[in-house]
Amino acid sequence: MVATDISPTTRETAQQTKAAARQLAVLSTEDRNAALNVIADALTAASEDIVAANQTDCANAEQDGISSALYARLKLSETKLKATIAGVRDVANLADPVGQMQIHRELDEGLVLKRVTCPLGVLGIIFEARPEALIQITALAVKSGNGVILKGGKEAIQSCQTLTRVIRDALSQTNINPNVVQLLTTREEIRELLALDEEVDLIIPRGSNSFVRYVQENTRIPVLGHADGICHVYVDAAADLKQAVDVTVDAKVQYPAACNAVETLLVHQQVAGEFLPQVAIALQENGVELRGCDRSLEFLSIPQATPEDWSTEYSDLVLSIRVVESLEDAIGHINTYGSKHTDSIITQNPDTAHKFLKSVDAAGVFHNCSTRFSDGFRYGFGAEVGISTQQMPPRGPVGLEGLVTYKYQLVGDGHIAATYSGENAKPFTHRTINN
Amino acid sequence: MVATDISPTTRETAQQTKAAARQLAVLSTEDRNAALNVIADALTAASEDIVAANQTDCANAEQDGISSALYARLKLSETKLKATIAGVRDVANLADPVGQMQIHRELDEGLVLKRVTCPLGVLGIIFEARPEALIQITALAVKSGNGVILKGGKEAIQSCQTLTRVIRDALSQTNINPNVVQLLTTREEIRELLALDEEVDLIIPRGSNSFVRYVQENTRIPVLGHADGICHVYVDAAADLKQAVDVTVDAKVQYPAACNAVETLLVHQQVAGEFLPQVAIALQENGVELRGCDRSLEFLSIPQATPEDWSTEYSDLVLSIRVVESLEDAIGHINTYGSKHTDSIITQNPDTAHKFLKSVDAAGVFHNCSTRFSDGFRYGFGAEVGISTQQMPPRGPVGLEGLVTYKYQLVGDGHIAATYSGENAKPFTHRTINN
Repeated sequence: MVATDISPTTRETAQQTKAAARQLAVLSTEDRNAALNVIADALTAASEDIVAANQTDCANAEQDGISSALYARLKLSETKLKATIAGVRDVANLADPVGQMQIHRELDEGLVLKRVTCPLGVLGIIFEARPEALIQITALAVKSGNGVILKGGKEAIQSCQTLTRVIRDALSQTNINPNVVQLLTTREEIRELLALDEEVDLIIPRGSNSFVRYVQENTRIPVLGHADGICHVYVDAAADLKQAVDVTVDAKVQYPAACNAVETLLVHQQVAGEFLPQVAIALQENGVELRGCDRSLEFLSIPQATPEDWSTEYSDLVLSIRVVESLEDAIGHINTYGSKHTDSIITQNPDTAHKFLKSVDAAGVFHNCSTRFSDGFRYGFGAEVGISTQQMPPRGPVGLEGLVTYKYQLVGDGHIAATYSGENAKPFTHRTINN
Repeated sequence: MVATDISPTTRETAQQTKAAARQLAVLSTEDRNAALNVIADALTAASEDIVAANQTDCANAEQDGISSALYARLKLSETKLKATIAGVRDVANLADPVGQMQIHRELDEGLVLKRVTCPLGVLGIIFEARPEALIQITALAVKSGNGVILKGGKEAIQSCQTLTRVIRDALSQTNINPNVVQLLTTREEIRELLALDEEVDLIIPRGSNSFVRYVQENTRIPVLGHADGICHVYVDAAADLKQAVDVTVDAKVQYPAACNAVETLLVHQQVAGEFLPQVAIALQENGVELRGCDRSLEFLSIPQATPEDWSTEYSDLVLSIRVVESLEDAIGHINTYGSKHTDSIITQNPDTAHKFLKSVDAAGVFHNCSTRFSDGFRYGFGAEVGISTQQMPPRGPVGLEGLVTYKYQLVGDGHIAATYSGENAKPFTHRTINN
């Protein structure tokens, strides 16, 4: 990690955000939800300006020869904007993640402990082209009582500046200090943001694998996200092969660029001869390019996979195939090459499934279903702030609960520790209080 | 962070621990608890050897001119050993932190999501003189299904080697691979341990503030712990002053070296004239040295506090005193100089207390009670693995739940994501299943 000089302006911006976030943290659920609706109204009223600013960005990007994929992400049509604004109102309607009581316990008569969720503080969000991400993330930050420092892609600068201005103006009509939302505009400020470990409590990077890895390796601030999504489907000896074909095709084809798409198919040697030709036809009909280990080449005419394939997230219609000796062999492969994202077993044998779910070290361990279900919305979280592949919680798809922490509140009536120490120590009651 | 070369031996040790921990992770509650009792039996049987090894360490330490405080910590008497072994059996009787179901939800008919706690993997523990810490930590690791790489103080090397040998021999008679417990013996290995981010999932440093800060600044592995414990008691204008005296004395005097002891007393200006002389007498009777801000010197004949005092954890019978203008002033002081450990307000005004508990950014926010209650055993967690002052959970006193993570298990019957996408998308049911 390289030491970074932080400009006085950036430091001051961050301190302002922190101060404003502390004011926001004590506001009521109603205050925060009302502000979200004011933001939604303001964005609706300013739709023309926002779309115009985005058109300027798009025109500039075209001149710079932007790729068509990036252009599609940059473009903020009126329809996309409307849907995003509707999403802000949806966030207002979600349950409040702040103020949830997780523990309520009497330690002794009149001495009551509560563990209550509270905002983290300030979020640092770095995202690429998509300008609507700014709206979504700001809505989640306000909902969870956090300040947010945003850094968008330089190609979206006009869009981001307009959106930030509209949102800050809207907040100035509410009980929330507009300084809770700040926009950084230069690339140099990313390094500065990552160095602000006194002011920023969580970094959420949205971008390429290499960018996320860069962020993880260059900050002491906790990072919510994942670099690689190397997901596996393992087809066991006791698999329903028709089901195995359907799940494999879905996991690869339904949205190959997604982090929860499958990259490597593992097949038990007992069923390789029957299964591989079937699945290969189904995948190739969907335009999937296959690469196989030596043993799989006995059954398929496809290029040979190199060891590098096992560690590659293709994010495309490419799939590597490996024949394994046993369940243990499959688990070993996944725990060696996987990225702890999501791995699925296809089997009709419950004991085998149980062993797989216990032994595979990943945020998502699935049985007889597609890896593509690994997603906050599909899990029913209402919103997704990211998918984490780290070992400590929060792990996997993370909803609003990833944007809050907790504090212990202890209320007594003059209670002192000496009462509970030494020879005549009074015992604690440690009685759970039901709400 | 400086890149560290890891010797092949240390890397291999860590990989063995990781492999053994993966086997341990799938064992049953009964297997893990049985192993703890086998360990307790073996330690009892080897008591003589252990005490003898410790006597060698103590003799060597005396020759090296060790301080009497460190000697007291190094010394493992038969009584202390017995109590520690009893603690191992207590850990066996605690509820299993592994396999707890946190979410149980139907996503659609036949597609069921569970979020289940599971072991973290491998813990890296660095502790100082106290050899019984090795026993306690190993018991908590086995209970929670984790491997553990231990690094004890060099002054305790004979004790640690004997204890590790006894524990590993005991494990070889159980279903647990003895490689789950490893001991590092050289100081150089601390740097290596901190660099093992592929193999080690959590570092728990036990030692001085500066050592913990060194660890936090020199590893990419998550660290559970705290450097400073700068705790405050704020005596509000509406305080019961008798109560305020009792709590202040308890918070400072009951165990001044503890991280949850008070370091700075904040007093509202309206009650400073009445309260300060009372509390000063009570504290000075207990041998506490006082240092005060300018305004407090109007009421007390004590040395002047310097700005450095507000950021100092004395860990001794010393207390700094500051008179504040208002509640907001007190909150501002704590949020500026505190270490997010534990801060307490003394007031009879519930609104003032409410604002303090909401606005102070700390793991523990207390009302009318001593900061000394901030402790895993007092909170009723059964065991404490550390106290964290970081912003993200786990925060505050951390019990066994700090040694586990979770995974999402999704079980279907051939379910694919395509069914729930596009024009004729089937809606999810997202129905909570009650157990």
